[in-house]
Amino acid sequence: MRIVWLNGEFMPEDEAKVSIFDRALTFGQGVYEVSPVIDGKFRNWPHHAARLERSMDACRIADDTDWPAVMAGLIERNGLNEGRIYLQVTGGVPANRDFLAPLDRVPATRFAFTQVAPVIDAPAAKTGLRVMLYPDGRWALRSAKTTQLLYAVLAKEAARDAGFDDAWLVEDGVITEATSANAHIIDARGVLVSHPVDRAVLPGVTRINVLEIARAMGLQVEERPFTPEELFAAREAFISSAGALAMPVVEVDGRPIGNAGPGTVTSELRSRYITLLKAS
Amino acid sequence: MRIVWLNGEFMPEDEAKVSIFDRALTFGQGVYEVSPVIDGKFRNWPHHAARLERSMDACRIADDTDWPAVMAGLIERNGLNEGRIYLQVTGGVPANRDFLAPLDRVPATRFAFTQVAPVIDAPAAKTGLRVMLYPDGRWALRSAKTTQLLYAVLAKEAARDAGFDDAWLVEDGVITEATSANAHIIDARGVLVSHPVDRAVLPGVTRINVLEIARAMGLQVEERPFTPEELFAAREAFISSAGALAMPVVEVDGRPIGNAGPGTVTSELRSRYITLLKAS
Repeated sequence: MRIVWLNGEFMPEDEAKVSIFDRALTFGQGVYEVSPVIDGKFRNWPHHAARLERSMDACRIADDTDWPAVMAGLIERNGLNEGRIYLQVTGGVPANRDFLAPLDRVPATRFAFTQVAPVIDAPAAKTGLRVMLYPDGRWALRSAKTTQLLYAVLAKEAARDAGFDDAWLVEDGVITEATSANAHIIDARGVLVSHPVDRAVLPGVTRINVLEIARAMGLQVEERPFTPEELFAAREAFISSAGALAMPVVEVDGRPIGNAGPGTVTSELRSRYITLLKAS
Repeated sequence: MRIVWLNGEFMPEDEAKVSIFDRALTFGQGVYEVSPVIDGKFRNWPHHAARLERSMDACRIADDTDWPAVMAGLIERNGLNEGRIYLQVTGGVPANRDFLAPLDRVPATRFAFTQVAPVIDAPAAKTGLRVMLYPDGRWALRSAKTTQLLYAVLAKEAARDAGFDDAWLVEDGVITEATSANAHIIDARGVLVSHPVDRAVLPGVTRINVLEIARAMGLQVEERPFTPEELFAAREAFISSAGALAMPVVEVDGRPIGNAGPGTVTSELRSRYITLLKAS
């Protein structure tokens, strides 16, 4: 049985429980991070740590857990070689349910667990993803990584119902991002176009690295929104996230993107990012 | 100690815990209802039951708990005379965290608890509320009563920080609703104006009753959005919710509404609604 971590203790996963009064359960007041684990080590933590701080500030949560120690403990106890670590911090457990948190702040609830998954040899990296476009109806504060995720869940399940792997979200005539990943294209000119980091999208850790790599490869990078029309005319499309790394998107709404297979630039970005992760 | 109910069992509140893998905790996949309790009886249940069904459908949650039996059991065990009952249904506890719920649906998590509160003799009914206007940055699916409530929490806490009782939310130049209540005015002509029930606002149970009462009182009712300018020029302003019933708003952004005290129409609506609740 998986060993998870909750509020300072390692324990079997079926013992890890939180009060029904936890503010993440009743108000969605939770923030989280997902870090890739490769060769038995968590990767890219400084970026995740910085974003976690920003998310907590935005959501009025305070906590100073030593996450590297927790993650190392989880990897060791579960013998995790490849996959990811999920960690969450919540608004804690007040004595009663009230939108207003107590003025004397209650301690945050904190938990973390491992997930075994093929990160490097993910099957979808070879075949590419088939996605559909879907309206973006999420809340305004998408730059914080919170558990306000029900819209993403409903979009992803609508995509599954329709026979797609995922959804790309559209707002005011432009693509914002995927349901749980940033979205990018190599446009008809060969330029990497990616929605800028603002409140409309999550500031992806993997996105930072991938754009750095792209620039190092000599690619022109434009951080601006792109339209569905640009997407359909693009040479390549791909997502980036801690779980998917850089992952090709080969079809949108049933229409092939580029040559309808994983793009060469995407494959090179993925390969270089894996090298970077392994060395980090 | 309060006795609460969780997944079929009554238990002390400090024993009521759910898995860290519960989908309300990790994805905000939870729906809820709050019913007023007056004279030891829950009130208005058929309206709440109907909305709960709609919320569950919208959020892909299935459950058939016998809530009247649960609520009666909670009232009896806690000797509750006046206050409210909160109940929540979540997407349940899958074996692992994944945006996509298992195709073989997992059972919903269900819990409920009582809260003692003065409903009829609420102090704020005599003084009225002082609110501020705040941008509405909630998600698109506000017609479902879900735990996607972090924006409302942040707005309410911003209001507290600024010395106000609550916030009224503004989108595209009109008032949508309060953070956890519907918002209404008696405008300069004496017409009750209330945002129509669409995806922008919660279809309030109390709102249904209050508008019925208003019509029975001979008031003209217009279900349409109103602007901040109409609000500032209004004779009266008030909110409606299961907890607040009809509650006057006497000041907005520091500017008095009407005579800066609870309005006569609001007071009459509140009084008649209490009579209706007691008889229900």
